[in-house]
Amino acid sequence: MKLGTLAIVGVGLIGGSIGKAAKKRGLAARIVGVEPNADSAAWAVENGVLDAVVSEVPEDADLIALCVPSDLVAQWVITLADHPAPIFDVGSVKSPIIDEIEVSHTLPACFVPCHPISGSEKSGPQAADGDLFDGCTVVLTPLATTASSAQQACASFWGALGASMVSMSPDEHDAALAVTSHLPHLLAFAFMGQVTEQHLPLTGGGFRDFSRIAAANPELWWRIMRLNQGALSHALEEYSDNLRALADAIERGDESRGLALIEAAAKKRRAADPSAH
Amino acid sequence: MKLGTLAIVGVGLIGGSIGKAAKKRGLAARIVGVEPNADSAAWAVENGVLDAVVSEVPEDADLIALCVPSDLVAQWVITLADHPAPIFDVGSVKSPIIDEIEVSHTLPACFVPCHPISGSEKSGPQAADGDLFDGCTVVLTPLATTASSAQQACASFWGALGASMVSMSPDEHDAALAVTSHLPHLLAFAFMGQVTEQHLPLTGGGFRDFSRIAAANPELWWRIMRLNQGALSHALEEYSDNLRALADAIERGDESRGLALIEAAAKKRRAADPSAH
Repeated sequence: MKLGTLAIVGVGLIGGSIGKAAKKRGLAARIVGVEPNADSAAWAVENGVLDAVVSEVPEDADLIALCVPSDLVAQWVITLADHPAPIFDVGSVKSPIIDEIEVSHTLPACFVPCHPISGSEKSGPQAADGDLFDGCTVVLTPLATTASSAQQACASFWGALGASMVSMSPDEHDAALAVTSHLPHLLAFAFMGQVTEQHLPLTGGGFRDFSRIAAANPELWWRIMRLNQGALSHALEEYSDNLRALADAIERGDESRGLALIEAAAKKRRAADPSAH
Repeated sequence: MKLGTLAIVGVGLIGGSIGKAAKKRGLAARIVGVEPNADSAAWAVENGVLDAVVSEVPEDADLIALCVPSDLVAQWVITLADHPAPIFDVGSVKSPIIDEIEVSHTLPACFVPCHPISGSEKSGPQAADGDLFDGCTVVLTPLATTASSAQQACASFWGALGASMVSMSPDEHDAALAVTSHLPHLLAFAFMGQVTEQHLPLTGGGFRDFSRIAAANPELWWRIMRLNQGALSHALEEYSDNLRALADAIERGDESRGLALIEAAAKKRRAADPSAH
């Protein structure tokens, strides 16, 4: 595929990585970005992530990547509703965005809700990585109103960046991501609450890996957890039951129960990452 | 330092790594191992981790590394109490081992309780790494009865493997490790309880890092969590309070409170790993 103009709204880690990846693969004749942070914008142009910074999405843009935080997506979709180009977002939640649009607007046919499961605890275009989407999974949650041509254009673009696609409903997405991403962040943030400076010399690789996501962007994660609060609360309830069951087995010395729970966890985790074991 | 004979009891990941590291650095003329698992024992000799497998610790051993699981250490210390060589263990808990010895025996002066904060979710001598202790921290919890010559011999050995040492009381060790290591394992095991096969395509680097320790050896971790149950329960209580506070802020939409908690967590986590940010 070869686009004329690719417009990226929000040039942070994800927007910057899309720019870098598209440039590296020659997917667009011109890549422009809308970015209110002047430092990020200047950096992105100077470092070849974008060809130019623009104040608004050009009328002739052929594809629009909305890479703003999840709670700003709906407003941007409404603003761009009459633009003819396919628009996708990259938000970590889907139903709350769609619900927010529907409060005041019909869902535009050109809008394709997307979520690339990538990301990093880093942020800003300086951390952008042109291979971030190579081998990553992108969830598409198209709606009954979504034009199939727009959906195909977005899928082709992600495919050209090296990603593979899965489709599901927005609610299915939000319930699954509450478990695989939002809950681990919540647990890791809470965990750091009791870690003190005195603990730091007494940490190893397990601590570092387990808590790495607690270094993520606080504002971004507050917004994600807040937006997906319903599904996250549900995931946390199930988690609390599982934690209580294992903690009880340890306290009571119920080895057959406790060991069975740990073995089931270890088996599942090893299956998730078979190359490592 | 150059030892005559180094004896390693229990040639798994840690025992095997000690053998490899000592051989690589020429720290002992001869390295022998006691290992009941015939496959592990044969593998260790064939792959140069040990010079020989022996059925019991030789009388002329100059240093004894007890690398058996934490709940087997006390019995080995009692068995070897009259051996003249310094003995150290590598158990992830300290007070329960010492308490168990004291039930039936005086603490031998030659016994130096140690804990190298390394390890891996892997196990067995096949996963041994001759650089595992290079740059790692070893906690020593010497007792009033510990001979200073034994303590110095163990510290010199760890130092020669590239480790740095910190000393503290067994209770201080167990309380700190409950937070930095045992609690994260408990939380990660519980977390995997709700992950299904359908979730796996929807996972990214955050999930992988957060849950990696759930792939650890179940038997070993059941024993560690059970032995350190008191300190672990205490750590879990504090954790549950912190988790509840953050979850409540999210549910109520209390942004100033929720964001403050997340920001404090992110700040601490970044300080723990300054090179990454």
